[in-house]
Amino acid sequence: MSAKLRIVQAQLNLQVGNIAENLEKHRLATVIARDQFHADIIVFPELSLTGYPPEDLLYRPAFIQEAQAALLSLAADIKDIYCVVGHPHLERDHLFNACSVLHDGKVIAYYAKQRLPNYGVFDECRYFTPGNASCVFPIQDTQVGIVICEDLWKLGPTRAAKSHGAEIILSPNASPFEVDKHEQRLSVLAKRAKHDNLPIIYVNQVGGQDDLIFDGGSMAVNAMGDCCQFAGFFHESLHPIDFVKKGRITSAPFTVPEPIERIYQALVLATRDYIHKNHFSGVLVGVSGGIDSALTLAIAVDALGKDKVKAVFLPSQYTASMSLEDGKALTDELGVATETISIESTCKTLVETLAPSFAGKKSDVTEENIQARARAIILMALSNKFGYLVLTTGNRSEMAVGYCTLYGDMAGGYAVLKDIPKTLVYKLAAFRNQRGQVIPQRTIERPPTAELAPNQKDEDSLPPYSILDSILECYLNQSQSIEEIVNNGFDRNVVTKVVNLIKYSEYKRKQAAVGPRINHKSFIRDWRYPNTNGFTEL
Amino acid sequence: MSAKLRIVQAQLNLQVGNIAENLEKHRLATVIARDQFHADIIVFPELSLTGYPPEDLLYRPAFIQEAQAALLSLAADIKDIYCVVGHPHLERDHLFNACSVLHDGKVIAYYAKQRLPNYGVFDECRYFTPGNASCVFPIQDTQVGIVICEDLWKLGPTRAAKSHGAEIILSPNASPFEVDKHEQRLSVLAKRAKHDNLPIIYVNQVGGQDDLIFDGGSMAVNAMGDCCQFAGFFHESLHPIDFVKKGRITSAPFTVPEPIERIYQALVLATRDYIHKNHFSGVLVGVSGGIDSALTLAIAVDALGKDKVKAVFLPSQYTASMSLEDGKALTDELGVATETISIESTCKTLVETLAPSFAGKKSDVTEENIQARARAIILMALSNKFGYLVLTTGNRSEMAVGYCTLYGDMAGGYAVLKDIPKTLVYKLAAFRNQRGQVIPQRTIERPPTAELAPNQKDEDSLPPYSILDSILECYLNQSQSIEEIVNNGFDRNVVTKVVNLIKYSEYKRKQAAVGPRINHKSFIRDWRYPNTNGFTEL
Repeated sequence: MSAKLRIVQAQLNLQVGNIAENLEKHRLATVIARDQFHADIIVFPELSLTGYPPEDLLYRPAFIQEAQAALLSLAADIKDIYCVVGHPHLERDHLFNACSVLHDGKVIAYYAKQRLPNYGVFDECRYFTPGNASCVFPIQDTQVGIVICEDLWKLGPTRAAKSHGAEIILSPNASPFEVDKHEQRLSVLAKRAKHDNLPIIYVNQVGGQDDLIFDGGSMAVNAMGDCCQFAGFFHESLHPIDFVKKGRITSAPFTVPEPIERIYQALVLATRDYIHKNHFSGVLVGVSGGIDSALTLAIAVDALGKDKVKAVFLPSQYTASMSLEDGKALTDELGVATETISIESTCKTLVETLAPSFAGKKSDVTEENIQARARAIILMALSNKFGYLVLTTGNRSEMAVGYCTLYGDMAGGYAVLKDIPKTLVYKLAAFRNQRGQVIPQRTIERPPTAELAPNQKDEDSLPPYSILDSILECYLNQSQSIEEIVNNGFDRNVVTKVVNLIKYSEYKRKQAAVGPRINHKSFIRDWRYPNTNGFTEL
Repeated sequence: MSAKLRIVQAQLNLQVGNIAENLEKHRLATVIARDQFHADIIVFPELSLTGYPPEDLLYRPAFIQEAQAALLSLAADIKDIYCVVGHPHLERDHLFNACSVLHDGKVIAYYAKQRLPNYGVFDECRYFTPGNASCVFPIQDTQVGIVICEDLWKLGPTRAAKSHGAEIILSPNASPFEVDKHEQRLSVLAKRAKHDNLPIIYVNQVGGQDDLIFDGGSMAVNAMGDCCQFAGFFHESLHPIDFVKKGRITSAPFTVPEPIERIYQALVLATRDYIHKNHFSGVLVGVSGGIDSALTLAIAVDALGKDKVKAVFLPSQYTASMSLEDGKALTDELGVATETISIESTCKTLVETLAPSFAGKKSDVTEENIQARARAIILMALSNKFGYLVLTTGNRSEMAVGYCTLYGDMAGGYAVLKDIPKTLVYKLAAFRNQRGQVIPQRTIERPPTAELAPNQKDEDSLPPYSILDSILECYLNQSQSIEEIVNNGFDRNVVTKVVNLIKYSEYKRKQAAVGPRINHKSFIRDWRYPNTNGFTEL
């Protein structure tokens, strides 16, 4: 036998629930790993047969049975290579987040995840029982240990594998993207590898799953804690790594993209996968001439190609001519089909219809919402008639303070910028323009406006976005109190107003479309606040 | 000292997050228990100072600090009575679901919940560390043990309290209503009491909290497992119970209402509390002449009084004259204000506006959705202008199969019938009419129709509701597979169609309004399925 072990990282885009298709991907990848890469072992991500996270599908006996059948079917096919595959495993009423090692038609080793994450976006204690045993098995004369995802982030499991003789750790993961998640992973892997003097082969899945973005970023870290191989972000990869006796991992040069590029690519991947995996033929974007819809449109085109994207202009009496000009410049640059449908007659009819009910009442936010909702009806009618999904264009700052209309601009199937603060929207627009100017400079430079009333500006209702986003960072991501935020140097009245706006718009967020998550605390599955909430902090 | 211990069950409606108000309720109840009931001890529900469930408020340090301060403030006030109060307790980075026993200015005993529910609607492992010690303390010469909620449902904690000398168990709870939850509780309490030969004083909170309904139903069960006292459902109560030496609990006669009455009262309480706790001045209901909006309106009137409820008729060309007649009869009987606003001109304008885009296309569901959405815009405009919350009227059967329009009839703040299958809607209407005929007989007897197209009937698109609801019960509540449901005697094509409809309407449910939960598996926090889901079962 050779003095080295060749490992292929199967950084794949797996589909939650689609076990049959996932199984085919496993078969194909295993054949390629064996026949083209001459690998000894291929490692798939966490719960690779089911995709991650399967959520309450795990409560369905039929789902667990199908996964079990797929595992046996795959095992029967594996010849002349070892295969580490992730799957749920049911044993006497206990379900485990497991992986099995397949070789020459048999399951030769088995591991159940020992540390179950149940915070943030994770609910693993809802489904799984923790395992309590290490898994170390020989390939040729190397002792190979397995730990799964969270096991790496906590003390214990790698150390236990080492004490059972492991010389190298293979780790299947399903680790969702966040702005600085790669750096967090690097730091954890380096610490764990050094602490236990063990190289770690880290395999992550890639792809969008509703709000979650799996960025890949599979790595190999040697026993000194240095990252010596990197499989890249946001694309599938079968990445071979050689583990040479005496604990050395072969190195290969790599570059890691800047954070702003990662975020942009994350949004592109999330949007593409939501559309493709849900079998939509394309998307509609209501284009206002503002920065949010411009960036959303650019991302949509980068995700799907211009032929699958349609821009709809929905002008009203308050739409400035520069909005239409900038929208036209944008759609010309991107080369997408456009349609213009005025909302004026619809709004006029609605105002007339409501006039008897509203007699003696002043115009207020009601009339603004009517405009936003008239746009939504028209976009949704186009969506219903032609089968295109509506992308919403609101950003995280608006979503936080409720500066958006329920059933209006919030109406749609996927909210591309839902987790992007307004100040980051500008940075992403600048980044996109560096790769080819598509968003007009005036769209970037003009003051933000909802154009729902004469001469309206966002800053009439909200603090400047630079201040708002700083307060939101403190309150949302860092769970600071009003007192702490004031002590950071912000005006107490402004902070209190923002916190109250956050609280009173919870009901809107509960009815919002799903959208890609990039923050440590996003407004999706890791933000679980009651609508009915008497906490004031005041 | 007397030979008996007098215990007051404080079955209170506490408000999540509103610690200051909850604290005042504790003070007042304690004074009444001591001075009017001459009680030795008062027992509040689980997490009584914060209300239950506080969800991610538990992640906010300022919230935990406020709860801690409230506990100390309450302790300082307690004189000449023992007080068992529920609160989160932070100790060296670990948060516990705790209760403390207060007496004469001091915390004299402390207990941390040992079994944390993390299934169904519960996410307690997200926040809490389990306790690992019994709490048994003396009052006069009686040894009193404490366990919290889930501790009763699992083996271990009561047995351990007994082994530490407990002669009686006090149990603070926050147990949400389900159709047969009272019977489940009775069975668990009887088993536990007999098993450990211990009487149990069971104290539950009461009140609506978003989707959750806490029904109260506090009880006392003696060591033979017999329920000898019952504090009633759906109302606050300070209920005194005497525990006589030698383990006997005094009995008092009681009746338990029938399940149909419980469900009706649960919906009334949930609706009332959502409106009141969120400070809405009233509600709007779009009344169609059909059974769902009729029942919703009746519940709203029973919850809030007729002066806080307004019915809005929104007729179109497809509205039958009998719909308007029946709607009028209903609103006359209930005595609510009404308004009639036709959607015809709005729909006409929208169809004309969209005509160039839809040239050559046949009429389809798009035009039906336009009607539902025109109604939503008008209702929401009234809501915005007058501050009334819109109640949606859709039922669980529709929500399951997506027979509802996003941003149309789904638009609103609270979905009263969201968890009520259509067949149960009829039973609840009949129950309500027994207490005074308000829903016209013709509304109950005519075939269900959405009235969005000529001569439309629900059964043109769906199986008869008796069949649909049976299939939904198997698939949703019992997690049966298609194969199992077919083996129950249902047509395979029908079952497959229903399961596919459930799957493909997940995105709608994700954007639905919150509404009261009565099922073991409701479409709210205990139904966590991905939008992007490749599982077919086929």
